[in-house]
Amino acid sequence: MNEFELIERYFSTQGQRRGDVVLGIGDDCALLRMPPGMELAVSMDTLVEGVHFSLGTAPEALGHKALAVNLSDLAAMGAEPAWTMLALTLPREDLPWLEAFSRGFVGLADRFGVQLVGGDTTRGPLSITVQVNGLLPAGTALRRAGAQVGDGVYVTGTLGDAGLALLQLQQQGVRDPAVINRLERPEPRVKVGMALRGLASATIDISDGLLADLRHILRASRCGALLQLERLPLSPSVSALVSQNDDWLLPLASGDDYELCFTASPSSHDEIEHISRELGLPITRIGEVRKELGLACELRGTAYSTGSVTGFMHFK
Amino acid sequence: MNEFELIERYFSTQGQRRGDVVLGIGDDCALLRMPPGMELAVSMDTLVEGVHFSLGTAPEALGHKALAVNLSDLAAMGAEPAWTMLALTLPREDLPWLEAFSRGFVGLADRFGVQLVGGDTTRGPLSITVQVNGLLPAGTALRRAGAQVGDGVYVTGTLGDAGLALLQLQQQGVRDPAVINRLERPEPRVKVGMALRGLASATIDISDGLLADLRHILRASRCGALLQLERLPLSPSVSALVSQNDDWLLPLASGDDYELCFTASPSSHDEIEHISRELGLPITRIGEVRKELGLACELRGTAYSTGSVTGFMHFK
Repeated sequence: MNEFELIERYFSTQGQRRGDVVLGIGDDCALLRMPPGMELAVSMDTLVEGVHFSLGTAPEALGHKALAVNLSDLAAMGAEPAWTMLALTLPREDLPWLEAFSRGFVGLADRFGVQLVGGDTTRGPLSITVQVNGLLPAGTALRRAGAQVGDGVYVTGTLGDAGLALLQLQQQGVRDPAVINRLERPEPRVKVGMALRGLASATIDISDGLLADLRHILRASRCGALLQLERLPLSPSVSALVSQNDDWLLPLASGDDYELCFTASPSSHDEIEHISRELGLPITRIGEVRKELGLACELRGTAYSTGSVTGFMHFK
Repeated sequence: MNEFELIERYFSTQGQRRGDVVLGIGDDCALLRMPPGMELAVSMDTLVEGVHFSLGTAPEALGHKALAVNLSDLAAMGAEPAWTMLALTLPREDLPWLEAFSRGFVGLADRFGVQLVGGDTTRGPLSITVQVNGLLPAGTALRRAGAQVGDGVYVTGTLGDAGLALLQLQQQGVRDPAVINRLERPEPRVKVGMALRGLASATIDISDGLLADLRHILRASRCGALLQLERLPLSPSVSALVSQNDDWLLPLASGDDYELCFTASPSSHDEIEHISRELGLPITRIGEVRKELGLACELRGTAYSTGSVTGFMHFK
């Protein structure tokens, strides 16, 4: 039994079985059926040891995160997750590692009704590539292009927590489990994404930091934006750090939060607040789309230069 | 511009543009449309340096092979290739390498009408994961299960050439470019696979060697087979080696040939010969499916033990 068959065994006891999977793992291809009138949304991301995660990361968290970052891409399109494929490269056979990894992957897959339909395992330096497939009614996808002058700029959840976790891990000092969790077990905002179909004019998920990712929206939409920094939704820990030295690096430029950033017409504001209450997730208006190109920030009415805050932070 | 954007640039000048790609590279997901009544066939395979290819392999050949081994899985289902995704992990930025890799990938993608719709590049030990998507009319897929007692066992092309290439590379002696080509630039048998819809009762592609892969068919179909070794289709080079010492290791157990092995009813034989002529590709009947479980071989009427020929050969 090879490792992929082992993973499949862990999946077959715990995993989701979908009616639209005509043929799952075990042949040269899986066979999938799509309802008419739907579009297929596809994405694929790789996590490499030493680049996206440290050697010591728990395999269960890795299994979760490898799928989560991909589901986050589906969320950013408003797609409903359906099927996933996993390519796992491992330095050696390690059954406890595989079992824990599968548990993390399966736990998240089950919560979102996603079925593993295939993949590959190979021997080599630890690396995980996940491909995901989501469905959405034709023409309803949330793209990066589409922001209009006058639209509000929104973000879900809180910003900077994953960046703070990275700092805590690197500094070997205090470690707040809730904060570390935001880095190691990000929650893909799938339900928000689906609820925003027909409401958001442009959407992206925040993997490289708010500034970098919002700029992708602005560039694709050929417009600019003005943000009010005091509106940024911050957890108490990040808020404390920011007010200590007025350094907005964490909420503006640290990656790995996997919240959604989107724009929407003022006429959609009430409906967005309704979605926020329904899902029990903060959705905060942090600024406005404007004609002047570029991304400007102000703090309590005064221009704030983000010149020094342009990069993004990943592990290492 | 990141490396994936560079790859995409090489693709945008040379690549296939399909009408069913609603949104290609550049957003959080690609968006794809499927015609009604079709099933989606998906597969994903990883090539790791030092495991699937040696350090010295030309990047152009790698680009070809990374896609070819995946298209071969689509061929084994009878699916028509449509879209592909590429996750590339590279130790360092190397534009000439990327350009050559893309050229190999694109050349094959264009020949089969496949469009690259997304993927990822990361920094790390060289590794290539390709995911492919093919289409086929619902219910027509060629599976591993389905072989019937009395069916003929067939293979396309010739067997053992990729294994011979591996020997030549390892022994640092004579290198026959045509033979090396079979290892480094395998030709996925996509057209044969599509033509076999409705004809083949079970199909697989030969990646791990004839014995290993035919056994997958027999296990899934709950039957056995008897092969006549003297019927195996061999190139002159492999034939010379086999007759030297009556060692059938290469055609029986070396991997990486990516020919198709399939079973079909005797009533389909004429139509299969017709397909062979139409496509200009040998398709050879090498044995028969029988009730007795297991895979037996005979050589000119005498039982031939394959007890010592059970493994498979890959690079290293």
